[in-house]
Amino acid sequence: MQLTLKTFLERTESFLPQNEIVSRQADGQLFRYHYADYCRRTRQLASALARLGVKPGDRVATLGWNTYRHMELYFAVPCLGAILHTVNIRLTDEHIAYIMNHAEDVVLFVDPDLLPTVERVAPSVRSLRHIIVMDDRPAPLGDCDYESFLATGDPDFAFPEIEENSPCGMCFTSATTGDPKGVVYTQRGLYLHTLALCLRDVLAISEHDTVLPVVPMFHANSWGLPHAAVAVGATIVLPGPHPTAADILDLIEAERGTFCAAAVTIGVELYAQLKKKPRDISSLRGLMLGGSATPEALMKRFHNEYGVPILTAWGATEAAPLATITHVRRSVFEAGPEERIKVRIRQGIPVPGVELKVLDDCGKPVPRDDRHPGEVHVRGPWIATEYYRDKRSRDSFADGWWRSGDIATQGSDGSIRLVDRAKDLVKSGGEWISSVDLENELAACPGVLEAAVVAMPDARWQERPVAFVVPLQESGELDPDILSAWLARRFAKWWIPDRFVVVAALPKTGVGKVDKRTLRERAAGLAL
Amino acid sequence: MQLTLKTFLERTESFLPQNEIVSRQADGQLFRYHYADYCRRTRQLASALARLGVKPGDRVATLGWNTYRHMELYFAVPCLGAILHTVNIRLTDEHIAYIMNHAEDVVLFVDPDLLPTVERVAPSVRSLRHIIVMDDRPAPLGDCDYESFLATGDPDFAFPEIEENSPCGMCFTSATTGDPKGVVYTQRGLYLHTLALCLRDVLAISEHDTVLPVVPMFHANSWGLPHAAVAVGATIVLPGPHPTAADILDLIEAERGTFCAAAVTIGVELYAQLKKKPRDISSLRGLMLGGSATPEALMKRFHNEYGVPILTAWGATEAAPLATITHVRRSVFEAGPEERIKVRIRQGIPVPGVELKVLDDCGKPVPRDDRHPGEVHVRGPWIATEYYRDKRSRDSFADGWWRSGDIATQGSDGSIRLVDRAKDLVKSGGEWISSVDLENELAACPGVLEAAVVAMPDARWQERPVAFVVPLQESGELDPDILSAWLARRFAKWWIPDRFVVVAALPKTGVGKVDKRTLRERAAGLAL
Repeated sequence: MQLTLKTFLERTESFLPQNEIVSRQADGQLFRYHYADYCRRTRQLASALARLGVKPGDRVATLGWNTYRHMELYFAVPCLGAILHTVNIRLTDEHIAYIMNHAEDVVLFVDPDLLPTVERVAPSVRSLRHIIVMDDRPAPLGDCDYESFLATGDPDFAFPEIEENSPCGMCFTSATTGDPKGVVYTQRGLYLHTLALCLRDVLAISEHDTVLPVVPMFHANSWGLPHAAVAVGATIVLPGPHPTAADILDLIEAERGTFCAAAVTIGVELYAQLKKKPRDISSLRGLMLGGSATPEALMKRFHNEYGVPILTAWGATEAAPLATITHVRRSVFEAGPEERIKVRIRQGIPVPGVELKVLDDCGKPVPRDDRHPGEVHVRGPWIATEYYRDKRSRDSFADGWWRSGDIATQGSDGSIRLVDRAKDLVKSGGEWISSVDLENELAACPGVLEAAVVAMPDARWQERPVAFVVPLQESGELDPDILSAWLARRFAKWWIPDRFVVVAALPKTGVGKVDKRTLRERAAGLAL
Repeated sequence: MQLTLKTFLERTESFLPQNEIVSRQADGQLFRYHYADYCRRTRQLASALARLGVKPGDRVATLGWNTYRHMELYFAVPCLGAILHTVNIRLTDEHIAYIMNHAEDVVLFVDPDLLPTVERVAPSVRSLRHIIVMDDRPAPLGDCDYESFLATGDPDFAFPEIEENSPCGMCFTSATTGDPKGVVYTQRGLYLHTLALCLRDVLAISEHDTVLPVVPMFHANSWGLPHAAVAVGATIVLPGPHPTAADILDLIEAERGTFCAAAVTIGVELYAQLKKKPRDISSLRGLMLGGSATPEALMKRFHNEYGVPILTAWGATEAAPLATITHVRRSVFEAGPEERIKVRIRQGIPVPGVELKVLDDCGKPVPRDDRHPGEVHVRGPWIATEYYRDKRSRDSFADGWWRSGDIATQGSDGSIRLVDRAKDLVKSGGEWISSVDLENELAACPGVLEAAVVAMPDARWQERPVAFVVPLQESGELDPDILSAWLARRFAKWWIPDRFVVVAALPKTGVGKVDKRTLRERAAGLAL
């Protein structure tokens, strides 16, 4: 018995076909159908791909939003034995061309609004043979539209038997410098990752859930939620193209979403939007935020004002992506809401199957005192052991372990707390300053929506921190002296940033994280 | 990364060592310690076994009750790469000697009260080299007592790396006729079975649970609950030697048990005991009954009188044992308690990873109309594909599928409902009569505790049903005409048993199921 994604699809098709897949379309209307239809169309799509000449091991790329068609591709391509390469739509043309050439994609599925990118990039992708537009209207370029293509397939297509170590998915992680690095997922890896997500002590995804993945399907498997939803037959609500915070909240309210997952930066936007226009989000049993550390202040706001617990996890494209999860152990749970939040701001413990160690500069485990930071290393059945055909692998992988580049401390219970990305730590006078700690405390200051802290070159101290701060009210003002005094309540004097810059918004990267590279350039300008 | 049981133990040791293992001892006192101690002693035990000369692949047998020492063996032996053979203490001496010789056990761990069995059997087990008595007092026979043996090991022992397809467990299933048949479990099989148990839509075993496995550890891995408890670090309460229904209820009340698992026959005893002496069992979120079909009447009594939902599952020694689980889907759940019970009496749908088919006599899938019975076939990563060195394998296995010998119908939702064991169906005038259906209806009759129906030879009809009925009150009487009229409300006239025999108790097999072989012999006597 091979551990392959097909097993999940066929079980749901046979035993749990009754729940809905709801997909927000470009015009804001909702498309809805049942898993029975989803499974039939997924078979038909795999058949159409096989008839097109797609072979096991071939790379099939997507350039698209979170939609039902994208979700059909999520299973049709792997169940055919081919490899689904989800291209990050927010990369530059140059990087998209690079990764499609590096992956040697042969087919591309693209959402209509992303066709301009394809027009610019496709001519330089040497391997590309077919382009299919995810629409039901005649396609302005490429082979044809998705529905016409689907019609060429057989809805009773039998998926082939596939060996569990076969590659089935591919995603590129944006490097700080240089070209993106490719990560390949196997059937076995995604099968086990999917099971892990459905464990009661991890995300507890269930047939009773209505899952709303805001995290893009082109970003680290949408954190595995489409796979998990199919595996248990959970209702899934896909937010479609260009979802705003308002769109997401409207969907949660209308569809009674129980589980939502998004980048921390989106969590900040959701809260701000709720303040502008209240919605009923009482159906949510959990809001999972990731991509960076969730500020405690945001967590308390969601908890106290809306009764919604925030789930914190840690992972990366290299980890499929889930590696650790906050676990509120029974004794802490029974100690009450205040104690739970202290645990929920931490990145938690490895999910079953993953091994974790936090190592200092000498390669020795850090003490469990929550004071000594070290780099997080993980390994497990779904954690990458190399980058795809990339010499940079040797910098990040050794003996089956992935060196994450993330810096954390470990508490007495073994749970980790992210302190910083290795490259984001501020080094002042030979000591480390955690940008994440400063950001969390600033975000808790009255009148502040969010904050980012980066290093500024300094002749005397080597580096000094600079804070960029966004006010809660759009027209709000913030007094640097008040911010400074707020931080002085908790941190040593030499931790207090030299400069506080009030900005209307923080720059974000293609995957929705705060773009610290841009901020560092601004900070360097301030230093001059 | 290999899928081995060690992964679970080491994660709990490092991140979730705080919960308790509670073990009822022979004198009724409770022994308690934490997972930190459990893991340390398990390493020490593995080390002692290695120093004794136990090699990977060697068989280590146990003859014991559900105790903390037995639970240490549950992980020490597999994590050393050896094979844990849990011997059913209720087998005859002849069968125990047969299976120990067939397994070629080299070491035997035995509980003190079972030493008489060992004295009789051990001399005929040719492979046996060591006997260790699970006690802390000097052992009257064998090598030594468990605690002295443990002291020879190193508590910092590092478990070896083991290939996931290595065998790690072994259990014999009692055949109706002939010698017991051996089933071997692999590391990979038990790893995946453990994860399945912890899925929210299966048993949802969690660190927040207090698990009370009444099902013996010598019977089908105690349904996988010791493995699941270790994997998530759940509190576990072990009922020790000779637990009575009163002992079990006292433990649930005192330890605030959340999840209890037992044979259906024990469930009947628990209910009868609760009527005699009430206890607070409100902490229970679920009572899992298995081994045979749970009567709807018993389920309603637990639900209505105690608010405890009964979980129904189906499996067998050959299936590690879990193959299917009742799943109350969201729409049914929201329809209310009455609708949920209609689903909960069914054996449900395959757990993720297992494939299932119900085939008629011609090998064709039965229609999903809940009317046409067929034999249940399953396959999956933890389902056996053969009996250990046994020519009878070819009668039960083909193409990776196990033919269970259990007869079920399938509903429109695909869920199965057990109708009978193939050998327990009553064949009357060329038509099938389900003994399970008759038993369920009799158990719902006022004044009835439980019932068993078997076939009696009949000259005219080939076979006719006979019912053995136990009154709810020990001194109660039951009128056959009333029982007959009760059944006539629901069944065709030719289904009604020809005889109703009132008995004080039903005979039970070594694994606690109703012993239908003995009843058939009694029924044959009645026919003469």
